[in-house]
Amino acid sequence: MEKVVSYKELLALTTKVFLAIGCSVADAKSAATVLLSADLRGIDSHGVARLSGYIRLWEAKRINANPHIQVVHETPSTAVVDGDSGLGLVVAPIAMQIAIEKAKQVGTGWVSVCNSNHFGIAAYHAMMALEHDMIGMVMTNASALVAPTFSKERMLGTNPICVAVPGGIEPPFVADMATTTAANGKLEILQRKGLDTPSGWIQDKAGNQVNDAHALKNGGALLPLGGDKEHGSHKGYALGAIVDIFSAVLSGANYGPWVPPFPAYVPMPENQPGKGIGHFLGAMRIDAFRKKEDFKKDMDQWIRRFREATPIDENRPVVIPGDPEREIEQARRKDGIPLLNIVWEDLLSVAEKFSIKI
Amino acid sequence: MEKVVSYKELLALTTKVFLAIGCSVADAKSAATVLLSADLRGIDSHGVARLSGYIRLWEAKRINANPHIQVVHETPSTAVVDGDSGLGLVVAPIAMQIAIEKAKQVGTGWVSVCNSNHFGIAAYHAMMALEHDMIGMVMTNASALVAPTFSKERMLGTNPICVAVPGGIEPPFVADMATTTAANGKLEILQRKGLDTPSGWIQDKAGNQVNDAHALKNGGALLPLGGDKEHGSHKGYALGAIVDIFSAVLSGANYGPWVPPFPAYVPMPENQPGKGIGHFLGAMRIDAFRKKEDFKKDMDQWIRRFREATPIDENRPVVIPGDPEREIEQARRKDGIPLLNIVWEDLLSVAEKFSIKI
Repeated sequence: MEKVVSYKELLALTTKVFLAIGCSVADAKSAATVLLSADLRGIDSHGVARLSGYIRLWEAKRINANPHIQVVHETPSTAVVDGDSGLGLVVAPIAMQIAIEKAKQVGTGWVSVCNSNHFGIAAYHAMMALEHDMIGMVMTNASALVAPTFSKERMLGTNPICVAVPGGIEPPFVADMATTTAANGKLEILQRKGLDTPSGWIQDKAGNQVNDAHALKNGGALLPLGGDKEHGSHKGYALGAIVDIFSAVLSGANYGPWVPPFPAYVPMPENQPGKGIGHFLGAMRIDAFRKKEDFKKDMDQWIRRFREATPIDENRPVVIPGDPEREIEQARRKDGIPLLNIVWEDLLSVAEKFSIKI
Repeated sequence: MEKVVSYKELLALTTKVFLAIGCSVADAKSAATVLLSADLRGIDSHGVARLSGYIRLWEAKRINANPHIQVVHETPSTAVVDGDSGLGLVVAPIAMQIAIEKAKQVGTGWVSVCNSNHFGIAAYHAMMALEHDMIGMVMTNASALVAPTFSKERMLGTNPICVAVPGGIEPPFVADMATTTAANGKLEILQRKGLDTPSGWIQDKAGNQVNDAHALKNGGALLPLGGDKEHGSHKGYALGAIVDIFSAVLSGANYGPWVPPFPAYVPMPENQPGKGIGHFLGAMRIDAFRKKEDFKKDMDQWIRRFREATPIDENRPVVIPGDPEREIEQARRKDGIPLLNIVWEDLLSVAEKFSIKI
């Protein structure tokens, strides 16, 4: 049961909602563009399906619609940005722009952000680097849903890492991944369908690996990439930890079990050591390393050679990270964005709340 | 069947071997120190067990014992270093030192290296940053043993990533991981013991997941972290790809299936696009982001909180990356380094080749 809405319509509606909570015109447009980049790329869990969640955070006064976003510390290649409780959707592109400007000056720029909120998909921000012939690298922490290896306690968020690398003739390489076996969005899909999860995705409250897609809601935890020790979960745990440290310990944001939850009804953790959620955003100028032309020639060859790797099944070729999302985006820009009825009804009620006509 | 040798003895012997192939005194000491840091930390596959392999590469004229290592391109925060076919054990510490000097000047330093060889364990180089109150991040590509998701062809090396973060009172966080489910060294241990591998480690020549520890030798491949698509192997593949791109496409080294093999008897891949093996080494000054004292206070709290996470089994607490290796190092510095007889005999034959008395 789906409704298909054009990108243009959905962008207009979402922008109006952000204007209605008091965002400036520029911020509302920026936030709507970032949020909808998820729907365009097929990451439905991170797009307009979350709009009402952001609004509830604003209602709970956990999001400031008019933040004074500022650099609180910097060197030629680094900065710490305080997001003043703004929408991550607004804070992160500003921080990434600072990283890009620093890279223009000294080759690379690295910005750690505190006092922010959820920033949509990491890929949007990392891909900002591409048009400047730079590599983008973006990560963020998030509230604890993941148990480290040997733990039954949730200590880390799904803490994604995205790296975007420009191609020449070939399209860019864009890898955007949660540091868990499976992202929470995939679990939600199985819950809705009443299906079990594969092994290695989740554990129950006692720390037993289970296949019940509802185990997370019942006090269980998502598992780090790898699933268990024998299959390398200590590596997934380490990756999630690196994201947490770069995003929050480096910036003065909250880390580990103290990261603010996305659902506004979940109480804030007590004794928080920092401010808000943390991100880490970096940009590296290609020609700070090599002539752009030489790099792009090799990157094109890299992409083609991997695409031509001998497949196990000739009907299922090797994929370059970013290929599937780019194909979905092309289709959805043309044909519109399919929304589950429940998501569309949720959007209608947000619109009604602010007397926005659809 | 083991022989235990003191670190001092082993260092003296290894240094003599590097001197014997024509390394300068400084380079021989540096190479021996880096190589043995693997044995000290319990990464036995990457230490003196490989010394004879390095010597065979030198005999095959693939390693230059007197390289002219130079910066071929740079900006205030970046450099590309050409290793002139030197030992990676010598080239990488020089490149890391350049990254550290750049970080002193502009906050961070990032060095991509071409024309190098195997550099031992990534952790040695990343940990060089710690004494400067910097975060170290080091990666390297390696010859192709790993099949990307959906591929039956080997396209990537085990391409490790290491991140080292200084603590305050607590010891540092040091995560050093191959981007595969299991490193090749673990496979070799199972081969020697005649045991099967767990699922998700390797596939055979046709691309079927198997448990035969010898499958790799018979044309199979190691699997990216995750094992298969359902368990996130596309993420492990993407991580290995990022390491390959940062290490080699950015520097002009060989990438993907063209990376030179470690065993000297394996022919060089044809039509190589670049020079030697590539590495990527970075350093970020803590106080380029925050006051050192504030960072260390939070990092100590991070470490303690994770160590105290509620364990599934009370006898198996949550581990901070770097803990096990540090404990092994403490023991081995005191009690000596246990070597398999086969490794010790291999060392004796290397010593004999160069008329080194033991």
